[in-house]
Amino acid sequence: MRDQLDAYITEHAERWTEELRELCAIASEATDPSALQQAADWCEQRLRAAGCETRQIALDGVPSLVVGETGAGARTLIGVQHYDVQPAVPLELWTTPPYDPAVRDGAVYARGVDDNKGHLLLRIQAVEAYRAVFGELPIRMRFLIEGEEESGSASLGRLLATDDALTDGDGALKEGGSVDSSGRPQLLLGGKGILYAELRVRTLARDAHSGGATHLPNAAWRLVDALSTLMDVRGRVRIQGFYDDVRDPSAEERAHVAALPFDADEVKRIYGLRGFAFGRGNTDVRLASQFEPTCNICGIVSGFIDDGTKTVIPAEASCKIDFRLVPDQDPERIAALVRAHLDRHGFGDIESVYKEGTRPYRGRRDDPLVRAVKAAAEEAFGKDAHLVPTSGGTSPMWTVCHRRALANVTLGMGHPGSAAHAPDENIILANYWKAIRATARLYSLYATQA
Amino acid sequence: MRDQLDAYITEHAERWTEELRELCAIASEATDPSALQQAADWCEQRLRAAGCETRQIALDGVPSLVVGETGAGARTLIGVQHYDVQPAVPLELWTTPPYDPAVRDGAVYARGVDDNKGHLLLRIQAVEAYRAVFGELPIRMRFLIEGEEESGSASLGRLLATDDALTDGDGALKEGGSVDSSGRPQLLLGGKGILYAELRVRTLARDAHSGGATHLPNAAWRLVDALSTLMDVRGRVRIQGFYDDVRDPSAEERAHVAALPFDADEVKRIYGLRGFAFGRGNTDVRLASQFEPTCNICGIVSGFIDDGTKTVIPAEASCKIDFRLVPDQDPERIAALVRAHLDRHGFGDIESVYKEGTRPYRGRRDDPLVRAVKAAAEEAFGKDAHLVPTSGGTSPMWTVCHRRALANVTLGMGHPGSAAHAPDENIILANYWKAIRATARLYSLYATQA
Repeated sequence: MRDQLDAYITEHAERWTEELRELCAIASEATDPSALQQAADWCEQRLRAAGCETRQIALDGVPSLVVGETGAGARTLIGVQHYDVQPAVPLELWTTPPYDPAVRDGAVYARGVDDNKGHLLLRIQAVEAYRAVFGELPIRMRFLIEGEEESGSASLGRLLATDDALTDGDGALKEGGSVDSSGRPQLLLGGKGILYAELRVRTLARDAHSGGATHLPNAAWRLVDALSTLMDVRGRVRIQGFYDDVRDPSAEERAHVAALPFDADEVKRIYGLRGFAFGRGNTDVRLASQFEPTCNICGIVSGFIDDGTKTVIPAEASCKIDFRLVPDQDPERIAALVRAHLDRHGFGDIESVYKEGTRPYRGRRDDPLVRAVKAAAEEAFGKDAHLVPTSGGTSPMWTVCHRRALANVTLGMGHPGSAAHAPDENIILANYWKAIRATARLYSLYATQA
Repeated sequence: MRDQLDAYITEHAERWTEELRELCAIASEATDPSALQQAADWCEQRLRAAGCETRQIALDGVPSLVVGETGAGARTLIGVQHYDVQPAVPLELWTTPPYDPAVRDGAVYARGVDDNKGHLLLRIQAVEAYRAVFGELPIRMRFLIEGEEESGSASLGRLLATDDALTDGDGALKEGGSVDSSGRPQLLLGGKGILYAELRVRTLARDAHSGGATHLPNAAWRLVDALSTLMDVRGRVRIQGFYDDVRDPSAEERAHVAALPFDADEVKRIYGLRGFAFGRGNTDVRLASQFEPTCNICGIVSGFIDDGTKTVIPAEASCKIDFRLVPDQDPERIAALVRAHLDRHGFGDIESVYKEGTRPYRGRRDDPLVRAVKAAAEEAFGKDAHLVPTSGGTSPMWTVCHRRALANVTLGMGHPGSAAHAPDENIILANYWKAIRATARLYSLYATQA
């Protein structure tokens, strides 16, 4: 199926790859405000070059929201993306530097190339392609590109509240998207929420000689003891009230998920697993990944961690922990439950610091947008697409969609080895061109989809 | 009681303080072989200046054992010391740099000034003083100064085996020693043994996005789960067989310890404690510190530990752990029990790496050396001295003493706020002069003590 759209994509592949490398070279981590602004400006300029009217919405020092709009029609589609990226550390595990984007064997390697700069950019390039080949978009397309997603989109609600019209639409494209190991598009209808917290404890005014371990309290032990109360060996969170607001999947939803393709062996190969966590079998993994919240230690540190030996009782210990939440859990309520759990178990001395929270969101499956995305994806990738209720990750779709109960879905090109949030994050260019085609096609299909 | 000895000490206080600063300025941490050799040479030179015959015993790359001998008489006293120091990290918690020794308010601050360089040096300075005031020592005094004590004296046995005469003596002075918060000398009759191990686990080929936490195994959780099986909330180690070889204290030993002075409030003040670990009361703390082994996390690290947030499933986790052992526990046997414990609890994937081991040793209380040390300490410090069965820390006295079952005891000047192994390690100079006097007096008292 070679047509003018394919021809345009092929013709511009080289320039578009260069653009992707240019965007990914900006180290737009949360800790670098000037890099964030540089990325925002880059996005705004690229939107304008594709024919969008653009503006930036700025509030007291938080990263700007970049808005771009183009096209006209009965329907308005909101594209939600972000230009910030996860920290690139540990740098030594990257084959090539995370901010010196490299092309190897048809793949592009860089921090953020999958999450979310590649996805962000291909939607803009799809606008360019559509306009060049067919003219004006037959829908109103609105890009909302934020810069705080990787640290929890804390200000997105306030940014959107500056203009009620920003969330006025008929459906939303969620960030990202992927194909499975067989090249079948995975279309996500939602994302988990998150509570990110730090637990900290100090037991001594200063580190002590470990000869005193018969009676001087050890902060590392204290934290380990507290953590060990949080979850059982089956992965069930033991915090009282934690599951109160979890929406039980219907029999139909369970059957839908159980029928989705799932290449367990491929996941095991990628991560070098003998088996899945918590003794979960393949079906259980599928259901849990869709419908279960999690409790995950992102990092823990206490005491002497350099090479060699040092016999010390650590005075301080801390860990970073994230809970991925499912509808209708609320991160603020979960944070209160964590606090109550620690107190109830005698860990009143362990400080629990709320770092970020995002509510989960899942849109309906039965919607014109979902049907249009499925058709566009199947046409471009040449394989059956699968509707997946939720991603394991979090995106701020609740903030954008919940007021008007918008449908939302992904349409993207990540693959199982993309290594989002990890060293050697990458995308496969062959998928990238297909995703641009799918997205350009969506712009027309959504205009008329029943 | 002003006499010639006091006069000599007063006269040389300034030079001796400078010598102490000079020795402490050598950053003789285990990771720096050239600094270790520099410290060894410094000690040998200082011994020679005090009138000792000296030599260094070297074996394939391990830090040299410095030997110094002087005096003649019916009895031979072996002084056991070390010139290596604990790592000085975390550097930012030091008021002044650890290897730029500072004198403030009558105290000297430096890494190793208490453990063990101050104690090492004062014994040599006491030889100098004795010889200057009284002439030849009436005992044979043999210094054994090793350079691997802070990493477990792994080679001391091999070094001593090069010459059987090295351990041929009538009693031994153990490293260190201290006074309590009332200025009463604490004379230790033994030291705990140690097993230092690292636990390491890898659950994934690489770190993963925490969205996969429903099914990708988290190394930090794995390690926390394993650690939480090692000890109960009362401080009792739950490793099967761990207590098999522990010598139960006799009623007389328990009564002796329970009667020792113990300033619980002072310990609590120094470490900012509300209460002791494991809910221990004052008597329990005293008994446990003498007769109980420990299980202590020295450090733990996994995943993302920088500032900010990163949502990651760590692929690797590790911790450093030390077990302080009491007679007759054997570190090699304990290491095997740790391995068996992990396997029995389903943690076969957690690697347990033996880093160092030292056997515990406790000498008899009823011995001429102990009586002579007590008399010398009480005379110099002007307070009752107390015989304490064991230190919380470890020293390689088993290696030196067990073959001839030598009595061994400390005679030193550390204080409860010395912060050995911690930032701002320090000694109080007033105590230092008293300890020199006590040691010089011991050289004569031990010659004739019944």
